[in-house]
Amino acid sequence: MIHTPAARQGPIETDAVIVGAGPVGLFQVFQLGLLEINAHVIDSLPHPGGQCAELYPDKPIYDIPALPLCTGRELTDRLLKQIEPFGATFHLGQEVTEVRKLEDGRFHVMTSSGLRFLTRTIFIAAGVGAFQPKQLRIEGLDKFLGRQFFYSADSAGDVTGKHIVIYGGGDAALECAINLLGASNTTVDAHAGKPASVVLIHRRDVFQAEPALVATLKALCDARAMQFTVGQITGYEESGGILTGVEVTVPDGTLRRVPLDMLLVFLGLSPKLGPIADWGLALERKQLTVDTETFSTSMPGIFAVGDINTYPGKKKLILCGFHECVLAAFGAAPLVFPDKKIQLQYTTTSPRLHKLLLESVHLHNQ
Amino acid sequence: MIHTPAARQGPIETDAVIVGAGPVGLFQVFQLGLLEINAHVIDSLPHPGGQCAELYPDKPIYDIPALPLCTGRELTDRLLKQIEPFGATFHLGQEVTEVRKLEDGRFHVMTSSGLRFLTRTIFIAAGVGAFQPKQLRIEGLDKFLGRQFFYSADSAGDVTGKHIVIYGGGDAALECAINLLGASNTTVDAHAGKPASVVLIHRRDVFQAEPALVATLKALCDARAMQFTVGQITGYEESGGILTGVEVTVPDGTLRRVPLDMLLVFLGLSPKLGPIADWGLALERKQLTVDTETFSTSMPGIFAVGDINTYPGKKKLILCGFHECVLAAFGAAPLVFPDKKIQLQYTTTSPRLHKLLLESVHLHNQ
Repeated sequence: MIHTPAARQGPIETDAVIVGAGPVGLFQVFQLGLLEINAHVIDSLPHPGGQCAELYPDKPIYDIPALPLCTGRELTDRLLKQIEPFGATFHLGQEVTEVRKLEDGRFHVMTSSGLRFLTRTIFIAAGVGAFQPKQLRIEGLDKFLGRQFFYSADSAGDVTGKHIVIYGGGDAALECAINLLGASNTTVDAHAGKPASVVLIHRRDVFQAEPALVATLKALCDARAMQFTVGQITGYEESGGILTGVEVTVPDGTLRRVPLDMLLVFLGLSPKLGPIADWGLALERKQLTVDTETFSTSMPGIFAVGDINTYPGKKKLILCGFHECVLAAFGAAPLVFPDKKIQLQYTTTSPRLHKLLLESVHLHNQ
Repeated sequence: MIHTPAARQGPIETDAVIVGAGPVGLFQVFQLGLLEINAHVIDSLPHPGGQCAELYPDKPIYDIPALPLCTGRELTDRLLKQIEPFGATFHLGQEVTEVRKLEDGRFHVMTSSGLRFLTRTIFIAAGVGAFQPKQLRIEGLDKFLGRQFFYSADSAGDVTGKHIVIYGGGDAALECAINLLGASNTTVDAHAGKPASVVLIHRRDVFQAEPALVATLKALCDARAMQFTVGQITGYEESGGILTGVEVTVPDGTLRRVPLDMLLVFLGLSPKLGPIADWGLALERKQLTVDTETFSTSMPGIFAVGDINTYPGKKKLILCGFHECVLAAFGAAPLVFPDKKIQLQYTTTSPRLHKLLLESVHLHNQ
């Protein structure tokens, strides 16, 4: 997989941008690849796989044809292997924020990280929408967002000498606490100094996290390297425009004050249609309406595949999304190659497809 | 897999008959099974897998989603495993010869073996049509068909003491010769006596057959248990209404007479739309037209999935057929369960589907 190069000036010119790196977005890479259309893939999550990888990585799926049983993680891995020959570029951890049609028929696409694209076609494979952190809704608290209050450890900056409160009970919350204390080999920033204190707050004393993380957390608490408090954050305290603490309601109903310099919140992710709703495409109950011949949306050049689209008979199944990718790819081909006659060829018999599929595989195997 | 029970009187009553046991027909079993609709599957070939198993069992397919590479044989095996929980009944080696709509809305279906069904729904997954033996076209020879001239060893009857000529150079021809001589462990009928002689005729001295079969054949010829002749059958001889021999044109252009009591011809299989063309369904260039909401043909209750159907945007890919199976199953459900509201459930989360998928698997594992 090729990731975004570090920094660049002008927009990236391409034939196709795929919005969403779930199973259907990944298979769209494959179907475009067979037609020799290279794609850039954008996803709000930091890894490919979408819902499958985020919500049920280890749960079995039984209805992918010819895979009697596979997990979300396995499905993602298999698709990544399948699309390897086509060398798509992935731009992860960012959302598409703007899509604008240009006079020459191309689209200008911008992401939340400031990346820009000029593309002939767009494939929306955004499933239930972009995954975003579930918010901690306490009136007035948002004014500290990005300064002392964060939904991601990466964006929090230097923690050296600070009193940190982490709120949540999943993998992300526990990983953050463990990383901040330098108790893991996978510390995000090995150069950062240690915080003055770390307090983890979670509404229950049961964690929805990997057993290894829970064991490490317990060991850290036992060694008094950090503290754990059961309770819900129900308020905050400030002084002179600075967040100074949170108010925690503990299980017996009493309130407790926990002082802090920085609040890191990990309440899980929930999907949101997000900016796609504002692109001016025809919607029906928050789904993009498409025609079943090409899976084009109401705007020529923008296609929608997978759970985000709707049409008569639509069933929200991954395997249906796969079919939609085929017809969308053929729908897009005349826009990318206006002068070429595009014909269906079979991977079993076509020398052209063998060359595409196998020469690159050989490259990858080197 | 459950096969046709030996003999039965009345028609088999069922909710669904699937015509075609190729990959799409097999996946139709799965999608109907999830909706608790049991199916009977009919195919002209003696084994499931259709074109995949017949034409390219060992060739790689690269475009089945999440299966970066698999052969036709492997695809078939995987699908058979996946549909195991649903215990479909297979009726192989026979074609559907007649479909008639009854007054109560059901269909009467009859096969070339005389099996009869009363069914609420029919799913045509017949691909490029029913595979039928390629014919040996020699004027006048057909009058011996079914008496001394056969396209299948099974239908030939007793060979004891007879002079047999086998024509062809593929697996089927070689297997037939080897079986007739009792040189294989998989003799079709162990009780049958041996023929007086066996002559294999093939247009070349190279066989398109498994190396093990070719080796056995050579050993049998070396041991003079049988003979092999290179040439093409170009005529025949008869006496008193009895076929007495064939005329073979050998490579140098001369004619040779080979006497016989029975002629068995194996020139391979070719697909034919066959009787489906006469069922009164709307066709477009020999394809059944369907609506893309339910994949219903022009006759309510008859659905068409896979390569045999056509609609705007249609691509003849196995993976598209899989999608069509889903919508066809949901299209059929109201006909089978007129009083039930059918909702899509997910195999990952539905306890009902887990029960269906897993309890039967346990049964099979016993």
